Amino acid sequence: MADKRASGEDSLIARYFKPIATDPGAFGLVDDAAILKALGEDVVVTTDAIVEGVHYLASDPPDTVARKALRTNLSDLAAKGAVPAGFVLTLALRAADDNWLELFARALGEDAKSFACPLLGGDTVSTPGPVTISITAFGRVPEGKMVRRTRARPGDQIMVTGTIGDAALGLDILKNGPIAKALAGDPRGSEMLIARYRVPEPRNALAAAVRDHASAAMDVSDGLAGDLAKLCAASGVSAVVDTPRIPVSATAASLLSRRAVGIETLIAGGDDYEILCTVPEGNADAFTKAARQAGVAVTAIGTIMAGEGPARFLDGEGREIALPRLSYSHF
Amino acid sequence: MADKRASGEDSLIARYFKPIATDPGAFGLVDDAAILKALGEDVVVTTDAIVEGVHYLASDPPDTVARKALRTNLSDLAAKGAVPAGFVLTLALRAADDNWLELFARALGEDAKSFACPLLGGDTVSTPGPVTISITAFGRVPEGKMVRRTRARPGDQIMVTGTIGDAALGLDILKNGPIAKALAGDPRGSEMLIARYRVPEPRNALAAAVRDHASAAMDVSDGLAGDLAKLCAASGVSAVVDTPRIPVSATAASLLSRRAVGIETLIAGGDDYEILCTVPEGNADAFTKAARQAGVAVTAIGTIMAGEGPARFLDGEGREIALPRLSYSHF
Repeated sequence: MADKRASGEDSLIARYFKPIATDPGAFGLVDDAAILKALGEDVVVTTDAIVEGVHYLASDPPDTVARKALRTNLSDLAAKGAVPAGFVLTLALRAADDNWLELFARALGEDAKSFACPLLGGDTVSTPGPVTISITAFGRVPEGKMVRRTRARPGDQIMVTGTIGDAALGLDILKNGPIAKALAGDPRGSEMLIARYRVPEPRNALAAAVRDHASAAMDVSDGLAGDLAKLCAASGVSAVVDTPRIPVSATAASLLSRRAVGIETLIAGGDDYEILCTVPEGNADAFTKAARQAGVAVTAIGTIMAGEGPARFLDGEGREIALPRLSYSHF
Repeated sequence: MADKRASGEDSLIARYFKPIATDPGAFGLVDDAAILKALGEDVVVTTDAIVEGVHYLASDPPDTVARKALRTNLSDLAAKGAVPAGFVLTLALRAADDNWLELFARALGEDAKSFACPLLGGDTVSTPGPVTISITAFGRVPEGKMVRRTRARPGDQIMVTGTIGDAALGLDILKNGPIAKALAGDPRGSEMLIARYRVPEPRNALAAAVRDHASAAMDVSDGLAGDLAKLCAASGVSAVVDTPRIPVSATAASLLSRRAVGIETLIAGGDDYEILCTVPEGNADAFTKAARQAGVAVTAIGTIMAGEGPARFLDGEGREIALPRLSYSHF
């Protein structure tokens, strides 16, 4: 594509994305399509888009935007028990800003490498609107072994990875909301929360443990409460969550104790990209052990119940917490 | 997802897209990911996005927008010799307009069915900008049999399907350009050209013939001249095109003969979604016969040449035609 007569988007692709498209199935990005080898397994397909001003802020650095775009998809693969196999990228840009593209592509390439999820292809188009980045990612699972949302059963333990609510707090800080003020004296805490919003930590290291031990799983992207409601609805069950057991960061815990934020805000916040899964009682020890070996913190926060009512979040005294909303919704 | 607590985009998905996601791998769109069965073949992956105001007009009917979004991807699969296997959809919308969505989803479902390319999953997000529709489509080819851009060889015949340039003329009419005036007395001709712009006819019926007989292929999306330049560059060859042999519709031919438009505009126009392929001399008869059996018109328009210079377009007297531009470019 060194051809001088190549069009603008082609030279843009050749400059920034060809160097990171090293997988043989990408054909150096000079073809119309890529090849994904299934290797006799099921191909898991997931797609997630992020829009400037909606899923990330125009002021977010391009490298964090790239990582967020890919990692939201990697998080889905992890929750499904799949091993990353590659991705395609659609980039809608207002203009070809070399500085932005260079930082974006470099970070994307780094993440593609460290998560072993190669760039296979894509499409670059112009838009008069906000930058929109759509990624479709592929994973592999042994035939029939994708972990569904639909198979949670009464008695299963409800587990989550990492900590919940940090990203929502980070977004509040970036928007100069009340948390920015409450953490004015704690710049390191603020920074950590902002980083959690900008760059998710997908739990791909836990994929095998989820596949081996969980009955149902999904990633927490819109808010723990809303996502648990979805998992329960898909499985035809209900749930009780022991709210004080929900894992939060030290910074979030300090904000909670000072009443600068309520737990209902953290569990409806979104952008966590942690794994929410249900584990049958008999698998709980093995799952916890496998998670420890994978280096991923998991916490049991409640139990799946029979019935179809909404999940109940109980406080330390066993009283139900009222949730004004469950999660982020686009419409 | 009849759960009343489901968020806005979930109920939108349940209402409009679940009914058309009938493939078992789509899991009724209630999961985070879909399953694509590879069936021991290579999975061909292609992705194409269309943006309101860039790839289609805000005034275009929602059903044609849906068909265009899917068919641009189907066209890539056809050119690669792949059999459609499914697609995922990312929809960035300003608002959930029920009327628009209903027409969009119904047409998408009809095309998914008639091209045997089921909806497997997707993501619906809000945007303050133009509607942006990104589709990643999958196809299957026997292992190693994807038709590349890179294998055109000197002496191969250059073939195209259908007619070239109609879509660019249709766009000019929709933008009330000079063609609108030139065709003021021919409403049926105008309508045909507009339909060619709005709803491509991907040549999936030709996929097997391309796979069996072509040395290289791609679809014509940005303009015949520019796309041939890309194919030649990827293959390290040049080409000579006998311009009068380029197939045009009767309406386009009449505009050409009246000098209302020049051939250079038609071959740089874009949005044709025809297949451009190169066929070794020894395969030409078999390819033409297979195309006839598939019901797809194919025309030989030139020959691949040794060398790396740009493809030359010759007029009826063998003189090279000057091309002010080769194709549409986004940047």
